[in-house]
Amino acid sequence: MTPRQPPGVLVLLRHGQSTANAGGVFTGWIDVPLTPDGRAEALAAGRLLGAAGLLPDVAHTSVLRRSIVSADLVLSALGRDWIPVRRTWRLNERHYGALTGRRKAEVRAEAGEERYALWRRSLDVAPPPAVPGTAPPAGDPRYAGLPPDARPATESLADVQARLLPYWADHLAPDLARGRTVLVVAHGNSLRALVAHLDALPPEQVAALNIPTGIPLRYRFTPDLRPAEPAQYLDPEAATRAAEAVAHQ
Amino acid sequence: MTPRQPPGVLVLLRHGQSTANAGGVFTGWIDVPLTPDGRAEALAAGRLLGAAGLLPDVAHTSVLRRSIVSADLVLSALGRDWIPVRRTWRLNERHYGALTGRRKAEVRAEAGEERYALWRRSLDVAPPPAVPGTAPPAGDPRYAGLPPDARPATESLADVQARLLPYWADHLAPDLARGRTVLVVAHGNSLRALVAHLDALPPEQVAALNIPTGIPLRYRFTPDLRPAEPAQYLDPEAATRAAEAVAHQ
Repeated sequence: MTPRQPPGVLVLLRHGQSTANAGGVFTGWIDVPLTPDGRAEALAAGRLLGAAGLLPDVAHTSVLRRSIVSADLVLSALGRDWIPVRRTWRLNERHYGALTGRRKAEVRAEAGEERYALWRRSLDVAPPPAVPGTAPPAGDPRYAGLPPDARPATESLADVQARLLPYWADHLAPDLARGRTVLVVAHGNSLRALVAHLDALPPEQVAALNIPTGIPLRYRFTPDLRPAEPAQYLDPEAATRAAEAVAHQ
Repeated sequence: MTPRQPPGVLVLLRHGQSTANAGGVFTGWIDVPLTPDGRAEALAAGRLLGAAGLLPDVAHTSVLRRSIVSADLVLSALGRDWIPVRRTWRLNERHYGALTGRRKAEVRAEAGEERYALWRRSLDVAPPPAVPGTAPPAGDPRYAGLPPDARPATESLADVQARLLPYWADHLAPDLARGRTVLVVAHGNSLRALVAHLDALPPEQVAALNIPTGIPLRYRFTPDLRPAEPAQYLDPEAATRAAEAVAHQ
């Protein structure tokens, strides 16, 4: 028998503020840059990782630049820009369908509280589909290799989970099984979907789950890659403050 | 028989000015940042690629940050930060052995013109080896996976070529054979070694070969991956001016 090494540590990080977050817009697969505050959040997250002695051996991002640039900033703060970084559309933010690019306040006023809440927080309700060839625009080269039947026109959180879990199984879990420290820099909903899976959350808890931006969340695992303890935010007080702010929205 | 597609295009780019270039120091495997001028060179190179319609499908860098950050800047100028980027020590700058970190003017005065010229320009003369555990420092994690017998203590240009060509054969050539546009962002001597191989240059021409910083060099290939025409700088006038400046040094 080959001796198995203990599994590595997984660190999840939600990218910081983008220009669309700042404007209260459903962003999804639109590719928007970070604001200066969002860049500062990423650098601060890098410093938190350094202070905790969590030095990533490999990083994974979506193909959206707010996640890519956040990862670059985290790694440069750690002096580890030389590690392998993999990018995948499977870590992208949820595709918001016809809501993509629209102001949240406007959608809420039009659709009413109930549908708005279902679209935003439920596990299995997807917004109406986007017009084909928008969001992403037809011919966007980053999705050129993706067959049309795998390209979403809208997504529920369950849809996000379904397209994300193959990446967990094929790439993240194998890196962890090799004992690596794995950094995933992604989005509010792709990280919710991953956490819901790892923590085996029931649907009502998924609805209430919110992952704050810029605060690394650390998972340790048993040898069969189940969480060995509840996941820990590296700055628990900031995470609590952020959760309270969301609850009061 | 599987129909073969035409080979892709290779673009070589030497990173722009680093703080050590600016200070006239033998840098080699020391990890120094770009200067603001060096960052501007990388962004300008990205614009040259865009103007030529050369959109990389994949990029390769060394594990030194002046190459990593240059590639990031090129790709962000092109809106292509989402492509895969691979990093390898095999594209690192030449290891300057005991000269690492020393001022060039001082080394020249000490060693005399002839040895200085041989160390800098010959194909097969290596400087004296570095003290073990310096350059890179013992325990540098980016080389942790590299067996001690593969870790150089000094390198001639021929040594650089010997450690670089496996990467050409295993990674660059296969990407080109798949029809991809391949960007390599590396260093003066790792690119000289690659060009010397691709162009099958005799030693005396290798000594005279100098690749200017910040100007993309484009190779097109025959189906068996030999150059189909002389490689072209995307800004030939700037390349000529840079070559003349070096000749007058």
